[in-house]
Amino acid sequence: MAGNKKMVEAITSRDEDFAKWYTDIVKKAELADYSGVKGCMVIRPYGYAIWELMQADMDRRFKETGHENVYMPMFIPESLLQREKDHVEGFAPECAWVTIGGQEKLTERLAVRPTSETLFCEHYKKVINTYRDLPKLYNQWCSVVRWEKTTRPFLRTSEFLWQEGHTMHATAEEAKEETLRMLKVYTDFYAETMAIPAVTGQKTEKEKFAGAEATYTIEPMMHNGVALQGGTSHYFGDGFAKSFGITFAGKDNKLHYPHQTSWGTSTRMIGALIMVHSDDDGLVLPPRIAPIQVVVIPVAQHKNGVLEKANELKAALGKDFRVKLDDSDHAPGWKFAEYEMKGVPVRVVRRDTREKAFVPFEQLQDYIAELLVTIHKDMYDRALENTRQKTFTATTYEEFLDTAANRPGFIKAMWCGDSACEEKIKDETGGVKSRCIPFEEEHLADTCVCCGRPAKHMVFWGKQY
Amino acid sequence: MAGNKKMVEAITSRDEDFAKWYTDIVKKAELADYSGVKGCMVIRPYGYAIWELMQADMDRRFKETGHENVYMPMFIPESLLQREKDHVEGFAPECAWVTIGGQEKLTERLAVRPTSETLFCEHYKKVINTYRDLPKLYNQWCSVVRWEKTTRPFLRTSEFLWQEGHTMHATAEEAKEETLRMLKVYTDFYAETMAIPAVTGQKTEKEKFAGAEATYTIEPMMHNGVALQGGTSHYFGDGFAKSFGITFAGKDNKLHYPHQTSWGTSTRMIGALIMVHSDDDGLVLPPRIAPIQVVVIPVAQHKNGVLEKANELKAALGKDFRVKLDDSDHAPGWKFAEYEMKGVPVRVVRRDTREKAFVPFEQLQDYIAELLVTIHKDMYDRALENTRQKTFTATTYEEFLDTAANRPGFIKAMWCGDSACEEKIKDETGGVKSRCIPFEEEHLADTCVCCGRPAKHMVFWGKQY
Repeated sequence: MAGNKKMVEAITSRDEDFAKWYTDIVKKAELADYSGVKGCMVIRPYGYAIWELMQADMDRRFKETGHENVYMPMFIPESLLQREKDHVEGFAPECAWVTIGGQEKLTERLAVRPTSETLFCEHYKKVINTYRDLPKLYNQWCSVVRWEKTTRPFLRTSEFLWQEGHTMHATAEEAKEETLRMLKVYTDFYAETMAIPAVTGQKTEKEKFAGAEATYTIEPMMHNGVALQGGTSHYFGDGFAKSFGITFAGKDNKLHYPHQTSWGTSTRMIGALIMVHSDDDGLVLPPRIAPIQVVVIPVAQHKNGVLEKANELKAALGKDFRVKLDDSDHAPGWKFAEYEMKGVPVRVVRRDTREKAFVPFEQLQDYIAELLVTIHKDMYDRALENTRQKTFTATTYEEFLDTAANRPGFIKAMWCGDSACEEKIKDETGGVKSRCIPFEEEHLADTCVCCGRPAKHMVFWGKQY
Repeated sequence: MAGNKKMVEAITSRDEDFAKWYTDIVKKAELADYSGVKGCMVIRPYGYAIWELMQADMDRRFKETGHENVYMPMFIPESLLQREKDHVEGFAPECAWVTIGGQEKLTERLAVRPTSETLFCEHYKKVINTYRDLPKLYNQWCSVVRWEKTTRPFLRTSEFLWQEGHTMHATAEEAKEETLRMLKVYTDFYAETMAIPAVTGQKTEKEKFAGAEATYTIEPMMHNGVALQGGTSHYFGDGFAKSFGITFAGKDNKLHYPHQTSWGTSTRMIGALIMVHSDDDGLVLPPRIAPIQVVVIPVAQHKNGVLEKANELKAALGKDFRVKLDDSDHAPGWKFAEYEMKGVPVRVVRRDTREKAFVPFEQLQDYIAELLVTIHKDMYDRALENTRQKTFTATTYEEFLDTAANRPGFIKAMWCGDSACEEKIKDETGGVKSRCIPFEEEHLADTCVCCGRPAKHMVFWGKQY
């Protein structure tokens, strides 16, 4: 064992076994590891650095749209969770329960938060009194727990990290605007920072959040054609406000119920990042959230002046980019493979005779800046092209079933609005569900693809993670 | 109720009732609120913004000293917690236990982490193989739970936010250096960012962390003379490594146990901030962590051009400082009291005739920059002066008891090294404990202030939060 160099081993091919390819990348790029705690993962430094860059970028967007961060307790007393009927039905089955504290049995058991609507409502009841106290635009970064039987790093774990926005507004209109505003923030973040295009729209009644009046979603397609619910934004109306007795005195001097939203994204996004962009050589990171944007690898570093030059380069580039100089005693070949596996966007190799791109030192700064922009754009375009190629249309049920069975991806098809058809489609296709009703619907046919009754909406259908 | 303006009410006087004054400030400056979850608080936007500024500052210092952030599970299986004997004895009594997950009784109960040494060790066992894998310099930002009977916002709550560093090193020397390096980082943060001076040193055997070989501490004095343990840094030797079977192959090709440290600070620091600096008019914030550094309050804002000027001012100052313009329809008097209560360092009042400091517009930027530096220094000096005035020396036990009974503060006194004397002093003074053995001891006498046997160390003694 001693003295052995860590070797970069080949990973499973993406086309051969997508699931194994995914976990290989998680492990070999050192993003996460399994823990001894059932269903919970360890997020390793490289994975967590990606999460920190995502957080910083999103947090800036939240603050620019007027939101403030807060922190609520991680426990929810059972009676509090039960306050809103649909909500408790949705979440209680997957809760972890604390029943003992300080060596004593608790008189009331506490759920480890699966989401925090109830805690926010309890607080809002105390701090909202008049129209002057509205809107309340709060967000929280924390971890939540939803008990899972089968888990996969980032995609489905019993504990995960996320942000949950919870806002209160004087009118339904304002709350609806907020719901769509935050979906737009997510969509922009996906496109501008993660280089990921996505379908967005409204969830059907069947797929909406427990307790919400309307749920909006962003649904990026993974390389293999499977969807990942990438973030959701919910409009609650005044349902929770009524359950919790939250009122405010309006300008009209009368009591009103405020209108509510919530919206969330999580470490699942790292799963999306992997499954949209990466390939058989390992992780591919979009430059804006790459912990290392440029790696400097000196070749023949024992030679006089080589390390000096490399350090000079690192200092110069470090002003504008996140740069790492690897002057460890691993062989250059090992280093090339290592940073390829870790998805570092740009490799600068200093060697007098064997450069890949010949760029004079003084132009390198500008060259790399442009290169990173190009890389981002190319990654986005490739993902968009993949989504286009794997998006199909079905106007008959036979066509729908054939596509579902043979061509992984999204299916655009008309729908009558009845959840019985969703149920039927799911059962007969081995799990194809409605992803969303897009904001801009096409008129593909007059009738529901499943039952033949008059169509109400066009729906994106697909399997999901 | 409707239309009522929120009024800034007077708070309890600090000299009259320090405890009530403290909770008044927490509540009136809107830092935190009680929640319906026993022992847990809600950290409100203004309080959380202070925490974010603290986090950003410390995180920068951690990264500059080579540390990386990670995330470990929030649950610890009971068998894992039991792996290190002293550690489990210290923490098990105050754990919250999850016994049900996903509607099923768990075969092994899970502690909600009170601290994460055991989780880090389990991971380190997997990722440390050779000397090349060392040092591991990891840190984690998260929340932890320690069941408490009596709680006070920020100072003692069943759940609190913190950072916990956990590092592994090839040699004992390196680990010891790390322990002291991180105590220094804490000391610098307290002085440079929080404007808080402190006594630092080593904890006695009796007061050290469960499972540690040595614990170092930073002990700032609150305005009332009571100490607050402001942060601790532990050297573990290879005790945990042996319990967990963590070994590495050295350059000598033999297996060795690595040496370990951990270090932590928490949202308690917000409690220290309040109790060191604030006064009868409310919170006083050191400029570097004030969420609002400058508030612009327009007087007669309905008059032509006043708001325009105020916005101009905000835009100009906003380039260098965190600025808020309050153009709400509250009266200026209300605004003055509000931002005084919230501890905003600088108030800029735009009115043609009644300025407090006459500073031409174009010099305001520089004037405020200097003012903020001065404010920080003055705050630090006042706190240092308070610490000096309330630090006493005792060479006889009578003197010690008299000081403990009548003059709140620190007592410097010699000690024999026997924890029986610490026990006796604690019992006979109603709670005075050893704070630490300072790095630079004075020779005050030859004998222990308590038992008269030969003295081994000078100790700082005092009551604590």
